[in-house]
Amino acid sequence: MRKVLVTGASGYIGSFLVRSLLADGLEVIALIRSGTRMTNLEGLVTLRTTEYDGLSSSVLEVIGEEQPDVIFHLAAFGGAADHGFEDLDRIIDANIVLGAQLLEALRQVGNGALINTGTFAQHYEGKAAYDPGSFYAASKQAYEDIVTYYVRVEGVPVVTLKLFDVYGPYDARPKLFTLLRKAQQENVPLAVSPGEQLLDLVYVDDVVQAYRRAARLLEEQPSIAGNVYAVSSGVRRTVRDTVAVFEEVSGKPVPVIWGGRAYRKREIMVPWEGVRLPGWSAEVPLAEGLRRVLNELESRSSSTFESPVH
Amino acid sequence: MRKVLVTGASGYIGSFLVRSLLADGLEVIALIRSGTRMTNLEGLVTLRTTEYDGLSSSVLEVIGEEQPDVIFHLAAFGGAADHGFEDLDRIIDANIVLGAQLLEALRQVGNGALINTGTFAQHYEGKAAYDPGSFYAASKQAYEDIVTYYVRVEGVPVVTLKLFDVYGPYDARPKLFTLLRKAQQENVPLAVSPGEQLLDLVYVDDVVQAYRRAARLLEEQPSIAGNVYAVSSGVRRTVRDTVAVFEEVSGKPVPVIWGGRAYRKREIMVPWEGVRLPGWSAEVPLAEGLRRVLNELESRSSSTFESPVH
Repeated sequence: MRKVLVTGASGYIGSFLVRSLLADGLEVIALIRSGTRMTNLEGLVTLRTTEYDGLSSSVLEVIGEEQPDVIFHLAAFGGAADHGFEDLDRIIDANIVLGAQLLEALRQVGNGALINTGTFAQHYEGKAAYDPGSFYAASKQAYEDIVTYYVRVEGVPVVTLKLFDVYGPYDARPKLFTLLRKAQQENVPLAVSPGEQLLDLVYVDDVVQAYRRAARLLEEQPSIAGNVYAVSSGVRRTVRDTVAVFEEVSGKPVPVIWGGRAYRKREIMVPWEGVRLPGWSAEVPLAEGLRRVLNELESRSSSTFESPVH
Repeated sequence: MRKVLVTGASGYIGSFLVRSLLADGLEVIALIRSGTRMTNLEGLVTLRTTEYDGLSSSVLEVIGEEQPDVIFHLAAFGGAADHGFEDLDRIIDANIVLGAQLLEALRQVGNGALINTGTFAQHYEGKAAYDPGSFYAASKQAYEDIVTYYVRVEGVPVVTLKLFDVYGPYDARPKLFTLLRKAQQENVPLAVSPGEQLLDLVYVDDVVQAYRRAARLLEEQPSIAGNVYAVSSGVRRTVRDTVAVFEEVSGKPVPVIWGGRAYRKREIMVPWEGVRLPGWSAEVPLAEGLRRVLNELESRSSSTFESPVH
């Protein structure tokens, strides 16, 4: 693996993956959809970018010309919980069409492998079979069916990693830990669900290692093509217990109103347990990961920098 | 069921379904993609048509304004066996995007049910689980995943009918019986595969009845939403045996070169056997269906009409 193409490079996990690959001297090309905010990728002078305008031709061109050994396919669009029509089109474009174009390009003009990104929410309440937690999850499953075609019929090597809740520093998204820290600092009570749902939290660096491990494994053992692996920490805690860890690490209580809001429609109370990616395990325990998150949040609030880039 | 929307109305099965529904006095609206050839629908003065330009807005508008009781969703694009990039985009648009827009419109502004169309080729070699025979079949499976979301999470009533090989008169497509008749009449040998693959041939009128039955069943028993049914004749014959029936009905041998061409890539030798649609069975035996096909082909070759409309 010397040259790789990354989709979703400007996203949270993608930007960490890109940094990790560049740090090891790999040639990294980011396929960036026209109009994407590049904040997460600022300052990466060795990163090459190429524009994706939604058309097959741009995908065909970059794969034909660059011949990446591996495509890390992280581009995805989540949409609102109550997705509307605009979200629908964007979700299908991002989560199905782009991925199909990548596989077709690999079939026609490429020679590389693809590491695909799924979600534990394809398995509502931890069911082994597909049962979608959201439209986003349904679109991921739809793409997985297309992957199956390219693996079995066209021989394109693909492995799918199903992600759980990914956390880490420099996360601009309004996720649990950022909200807890804000509530703590501003002393404004945070209304949350009753908090009995189990979370499988995985530190972002561990997720990056899972992508890299999957690419190596697929190269070493081509027969794993088509497999789906869980990028799971192996530890599940309720939201309540997770907040308790947060309070312990931060050394301060968080003003939380348990049950202040209802569970979301189709909230997943028990996450899926799939087959873990062989040769990989999550290395960063929650307490350690949280220390890093809190350190970064601290430096962010006490420094003068403007954007949450890293 | 008084008012229905039909997609794929200009196609072979769709045009028979539309005729059947109009004949029973139903109000039928055909959602027609811009630029579609309307040959199959000529002369149907009571049919209303509305244009689909690929955008969600046109779907939202027709469903919101017309409030169809049932959508018969037959629109599909097959593509070449060796699909390329243009086919890829068209297949995703026709087989995934349009269907998702219909379901989203039913969720947002509609109140009706949808009868979806799948294919036995989603089950390569008759496997119970998904295993795609073609990219077309993969796109159908992808859409089925989206259906699952709308059924389970949004409560939209959908039933999927999986079709097998549909045949009948007025079929302009270059399918087996048309080719056999041509070979017979012109006495030009027809090169075919070794012919050991099993076919499940269903007469087009029986298929039409399956769609109508599925709509009634879903109205009577809303709990069947999400179910998938096989529109199977219950009879499977090899291509060789099928040609023998053709020769018997037509009273003449057909000059066929068995093995003159290879089986297609991923030719399905043994079709899937799914759960048959309750309360429906194929009524037209192959010999009878073939008599009708041959009568029509006869009238076509001896008359002066130009287009294969019916």
